[in-house]
Amino acid sequence: MRSMASSGPTKGIAAIVGVGPKLGRSIARKFAHEGYTVAILARDLGRLSRFADEIAREEKAQVFAIRIDCSDTKSIKEAFEGVLSLGFVEVLVYNAYQQVSWHPTNFTDIRLDSFEKSLAVSSTGAFHCAQQVLPGMVERGKGTILFTGCSASLNGIAGFSELCCGKFALRALSQCLAKEFQPMGVHVAHVIIDGVVGPPRGPSGSRRTSFGEQHQQSLGGGGELMDPDSLAQTYWHLHAQDRSAWTQEIDLHPSTSAHHRILY
Amino acid sequence: MRSMASSGPTKGIAAIVGVGPKLGRSIARKFAHEGYTVAILARDLGRLSRFADEIAREEKAQVFAIRIDCSDTKSIKEAFEGVLSLGFVEVLVYNAYQQVSWHPTNFTDIRLDSFEKSLAVSSTGAFHCAQQVLPGMVERGKGTILFTGCSASLNGIAGFSELCCGKFALRALSQCLAKEFQPMGVHVAHVIIDGVVGPPRGPSGSRRTSFGEQHQQSLGGGGELMDPDSLAQTYWHLHAQDRSAWTQEIDLHPSTSAHHRILY
Amino acid sequence: MRSMASSGPTKGIAAIVGVGPKLGRSIARKFAHEGYTVAILARDLGRLSRFADEIAREEKAQVFAIRIDCSDTKSIKEAFEGVLSLGFVEVLVYNAYQQVSWHPTNFTDIRLDSFEKSLAVSSTGAFHCAQQVLPGMVERGKGTILFTGCSASLNGIAGFSELCCGKFALRALSQCLAKEFQPMGVHVAHVIIDGVVGPPRGPSGSRRTSFGEQHQQSLGGGGELMDPDSLAQTYWHLHAQDRSAWTQEIDLHPSTSAHHRILY
Amino acid sequence: MRSMASSGPTKGIAAIVGVGPKLGRSIARKFAHEGYTVAILARDLGRLSRFADEIAREEKAQVFAIRIDCSDTKSIKEAFEGVLSLGFVEVLVYNAYQQVSWHPTNFTDIRLDSFEKSLAVSSTGAFHCAQQVLPGMVERGKGTILFTGCSASLNGIAGFSELCCGKFALRALSQCLAKEFQPMGVHVAHVIIDGVVGPPRGPSGSRRTSFGEQHQQSLGGGGELMDPDSLAQTYWHLHAQDRSAWTQEIDLHPSTSAHHRILY
Repeated sequence: MRSMASSGPTKGIAAIVGVGPKLGRSIARKFAHEGYTVAILARDLGRLSRFADEIAREEKAQVFAIRIDCSDTKSIKEAFEGVLSLGFVEVLVYNAYQQVSWHPTNFTDIRLDSFEKSLAVSSTGAFHCAQQVLPGMVERGKGTILFTGCSASLNGIAGFSELCCGKFALRALSQCLAKEFQPMGVHVAHVIIDGVVGPPRGPSGSRRTSFGEQHQQSLGGGGELMDPDSLAQTYWHLHAQDRSAWTQEIDLHPSTSAHHRILY
Repeated sequence: MRSMASSGPTKGIAAIVGVGPKLGRSIARKFAHEGYTVAILARDLGRLSRFADEIAREEKAQVFAIRIDCSDTKSIKEAFEGVLSLGFVEVLVYNAYQQVSWHPTNFTDIRLDSFEKSLAVSSTGAFHCAQQVLPGMVERGKGTILFTGCSASLNGIAGFSELCCGKFALRALSQCLAKEFQPMGVHVAHVIIDGVVGPPRGPSGSRRTSFGEQHQQSLGGGGELMDPDSLAQTYWHLHAQDRSAWTQEIDLHPSTSAHHRILY
Repeated sequence: MRSMASSGPTKGIAAIVGVGPKLGRSIARKFAHEGYTVAILARDLGRLSRFADEIAREEKAQVFAIRIDCSDTKSIKEAFEGVLSLGFVEVLVYNAYQQVSWHPTNFTDIRLDSFEKSLAVSSTGAFHCAQQVLPGMVERGKGTILFTGCSASLNGIAGFSELCCGKFALRALSQCLAKEFQPMGVHVAHVIIDGVVGPPRGPSGSRRTSFGEQHQQSLGGGGELMDPDSLAQTYWHLHAQDRSAWTQEIDLHPSTSAHHRILY
Repeated sequence: MRSMASSGPTKGIAAIVGVGPKLGRSIARKFAHEGYTVAILARDLGRLSRFADEIAREEKAQVFAIRIDCSDTKSIKEAFEGVLSLGFVEVLVYNAYQQVSWHPTNFTDIRLDSFEKSLAVSSTGAFHCAQQVLPGMVERGKGTILFTGCSASLNGIAGFSELCCGKFALRALSQCLAKEFQPMGVHVAHVIIDGVVGPPRGPSGSRRTSFGEQHQQSLGGGGELMDPDSLAQTYWHLHAQDRSAWTQEIDLHPSTSAHHRILY
């Protein structure tokens, strides 16, 4: 764990599980920007530490990098002991999934262990992470858990059963937890990202500051990629929703996708 | 039409159709607060004018009250001639529906004209309003259309076929328009309000200004009612989304509903 | 009405609304084959009468052709006075919809009266037909109502808002009626035909009689078209389901559609 | 394996995985009745053998009882070596799931190994069984795979995340396989049983023989239980569907459930 001198956080911790250079990093940065102490978790601790340094410097925030392997229950347990030692986890974002090929795989060629691992990362890992943070959230009567889904969460896709089964199961978990824990003050939501996330659109370190600026940006040729900083705005909005008006499921897709799947 | 002295709006108009004392008024106020010139439309022009005065005064904004009967195509056409004379319609919120009894009606007791009127207001009216504003949005390559749904948009309910048929059709319209117009820069979204909206929670004229304040409010006994000002925050967020990360459908429900229907 | 000498039916009438040369005719023939007296209803009485003659002759059944215009409530009322004069309506199949172009129409080019007519035929007509037969079904504690949907019942399609709005509304109606009337012994189901129906595959007048025969038929080049006689088998199965195991919604699509939309 | 003298089956084998005294047994009996050689698989070989004897005797059919533990990949592999030694598997019905308590369990009390086992039985087991039979089905260009779901396949339920996650994943598997294998002639469908299955309604050994008889039976006080023999009729119908008109998903529920969840 990358440790930093810290006065005790009063807002609680935002723990982001599954942090790569795109969505996870942008979400971490957004919560850091809003004043949260952030724990970012992924398998590659070297890269993760660079992200933590970068966000900490740019946002003048406390950011902790903690190694996690979401297919390994022991690793999850240890990682969250680290997270919880930092303070109360107020926000959990679960973003991890087992990378699959962009090309469909013949069903009969999928290895059983590969199928099992995808389920383990997409759903059992999420189950286990949620178990680590929910008792504290229930005790305080507040908290937010955001799960990241994709189009494979809603419809089976030929050649992608590994991904689809794990993502369907994750959606089930999100719905079960929402029903059980919302009356106790814990907001649980499922975010369906229906498109390909690209690198952040702004120069590194720059964040758009106003709504007007956003609308002036031309999408140009990169229009098909989703801007992770823009996605992170919606993660933040979900967290910021008043408890009389909570979202349980939301989709996000790029405007330029003429044939995107409208949900459901 | 209630006319006000006005320098030409540069942001475009936000037109809110179906404005009563709860959701419509809160959405209008939010867009006024963010600097938009707002046109509010409903059948009761007297009440509408009082809302317009109140919002204009409190938000130092231009607010126009325009009578509309969404079951009457001539009325829609005339109302939007008024709206479009104010400037470019950048935002359309369609909120109108035919009031139904809170109690289920035996199917065989539903009058045909009542069924037809419900379809007319929920879906034909929305179709017609969208046709008034889309050409301008397409021409400028920008615009936002938000349709308000409810739990009857997603599942049939015994005794409520009038409401359900109209709301299902409205959802279809939203999906069709999203697919056709998003590539042209127009954001179309469907907001499913799965709960009972109460009066604004704050004292009249006060708006919460920070996220922290919201979370400090105890829901108390009124917890089952949804705060329209909080709902309006999400309407605004949808409008403010960057076009690389647009939502097509989102649900909203109160946290205290233990048995609320998780969507889909 | 085409009248035939008839001893009083004991099974009740099967009324098929929206009968053209494909699905409607096949469903009518199947119910006739199973011993029902059948009333077939459509706008073109000449063609309808030829179908009635053909089915009556081939199936040794009573078949009545009755003109109906499903966009006209007076026509519906009169047509069902005719149907009900034949006996108790035990089965209603609602198959009517307003023909639309196979090509998408720009939304802003859709005429309001065309949109209204599509809603009238797809949903108001269904509402009105259901009202004619439900009191009798409730009184006897039995009956079956089957509504025909399509892929436009489930997802908006760019350029097809007329069709989608009407078909979404029809699905809502089906769900509302199922919830209200199933406890009273009336089976209501929605059949989603997700493909293009072709002409019956067998030679006119021949019906496959065994399951084995079906499986021996090679689909050949016409594989993308759905066989209406095969579809009719499922309509019949739904009617024949025991009331402890009723279906509310079912999809049907051709096997050869590699990219067909798997539902939901 | 319980072995019987047998002339080589020409129709192929129907393999029913997850056979208890209700649904599985009724499905096995129905396929035996229609002339299939049936392999029934479950963990309790003693009980299974009694079912096999009973069905073989009553239906004059060949029925083989084979032990399987669907949470154990080695057991699945061995069991299907047995099944495949009997002949070509033309039909696979996957019915197995990990029994859960009828009462909700606090999420934080669910043991990780229990969650993992539920996923293993509901989804990994189904994945593995499908892999055993699909190569033969593809080679012959025919076959039917039917997966059994329940209301937990469609909506999260507070206190039932184990069941829901596994059943959502199974539905994903069904959709993925349908999209990949239907163009190759393999029919894959998902049957959602939305109610409580009771014992077969007829006296043991008696099967209703006509549609008329069914409708004359009064449901009486046992009306809330679903008759497994009636459910089996729909499993059979799905198998018998012509390939120009295949179902991918169907729900089944008892008529007497006034508040049953209409799907989707």
